Amino acid sequence: MTSDLRQQPDRGLLIVLSGPSGVGKGTVCKALREVDYNLVYSVSATTRAPRAGEIDGVNYFFKTKEQFIEMIEQNQLLEWAEYVGNYYGTPRSFVEETLAAGQDVILEIEVQGALKVRQKFAEAVFIFLMPPSLVELQNRIQTRGTDSAESIVRRMSTAIEELRMIEQYDYCVVNDQVEAACARIQAILVAEHCRRERVLPKIHNWMEEVH
Amino acid sequence: MTSDLRQQPDRGLLIVLSGPSGVGKGTVCKALREVDYNLVYSVSATTRAPRAGEIDGVNYFFKTKEQFIEMIEQNQLLEWAEYVGNYYGTPRSFVEETLAAGQDVILEIEVQGALKVRQKFAEAVFIFLMPPSLVELQNRIQTRGTDSAESIVRRMSTAIEELRMIEQYDYCVVNDQVEAACARIQAILVAEHCRRERVLPKIHNWMEEVH
Repeated sequence: MTSDLRQQPDRGLLIVLSGPSGVGKGTVCKALREVDYNLVYSVSATTRAPRAGEIDGVNYFFKTKEQFIEMIEQNQLLEWAEYVGNYYGTPRSFVEETLAAGQDVILEIEVQGALKVRQKFAEAVFIFLMPPSLVELQNRIQTRGTDSAESIVRRMSTAIEELRMIEQYDYCVVNDQVEAACARIQAILVAEHCRRERVLPKIHNWMEEVH
Repeated sequence: MTSDLRQQPDRGLLIVLSGPSGVGKGTVCKALREVDYNLVYSVSATTRAPRAGEIDGVNYFFKTKEQFIEMIEQNQLLEWAEYVGNYYGTPRSFVEETLAAGQDVILEIEVQGALKVRQKFAEAVFIFLMPPSLVELQNRIQTRGTDSAESIVRRMSTAIEELRMIEQYDYCVVNDQVEAACARIQAILVAEHCRRERVLPKIHNWMEEVH
């Protein structure tokens, strides 16, 4: 629905979707891609090993540590961070070119990376994906089944610290159901395209034509 | 769709829908009422004569000038304004009670009235309904067929002045098609319920439970 309702953007919006470990960022982003063909998904680079079913260039650009450090040194990353022993980063040129072409871009990144993007893109829209409750978050981390017991304890502790970062975000979307979370994110996109500061240049043009 | 996606509001949102004369505020509000049963429509009081089909207590509370002045004196109006020779105003108690009960309220009012509400309700969401173009606005004013030629010229002049007020609003919704305008307003409602400052108290409660 989003694409029909967008009000002729000259420049796309950068949406940063983040939230605590285990909240379901990847699942929500995947579902969004399936319903909203006009939303361009920024693929991150990472040094972590692919999980079952993940495809290089689709889910992530999988890099060696040496390759990743070279990207940092050549300033090819919009942000990067180390998280639970691995590097994650956002290739810069892809995001900037897509926005300039008038298309919206969504970044799904960890909380550390989101805060760095905030410093470089003041006009980006920051969405924090929230669990319905802390108990539900713990269940999700435990049942993902890809982490050791020690890793689960560490992830839960990290997640609680990450929840405190919510004050840095514009919106908090509860991930109670994936479809509902997607619809809320699409509503935020439509609403942001209606914000006064994005429409004002058009009105100023009209006024110059009248007088 | 809006009602399903709202994130458990403790207090409703006040949405103020305004815009230049002839832009279609009444038509959009009527269409919204038909698709969104959870959005409570604030009925204005006015001294202007009913148009064909308008019903007292549904479209407006139709008042004599004497009755209206009594409401002003007894502080029963949230805002009031004189516009093209008639008084318009918003009964205060209905809006405040509905918000306190957790329901969203929409006010459809003239630009003058909207600016007065802005002073009293800093947390309200202000939406400016825009014509697709100035030419289209003139067509709409002319074809409504309820005004004299002199009145049309005056309305067009007023409408252009009112367009300048757009800088006082949070959102600008283009009324290119009524259904699209309604969907944008519903998206703004969903998005506003996701704003960080409205969700933050819940997170603070979680943190108190953990530590």
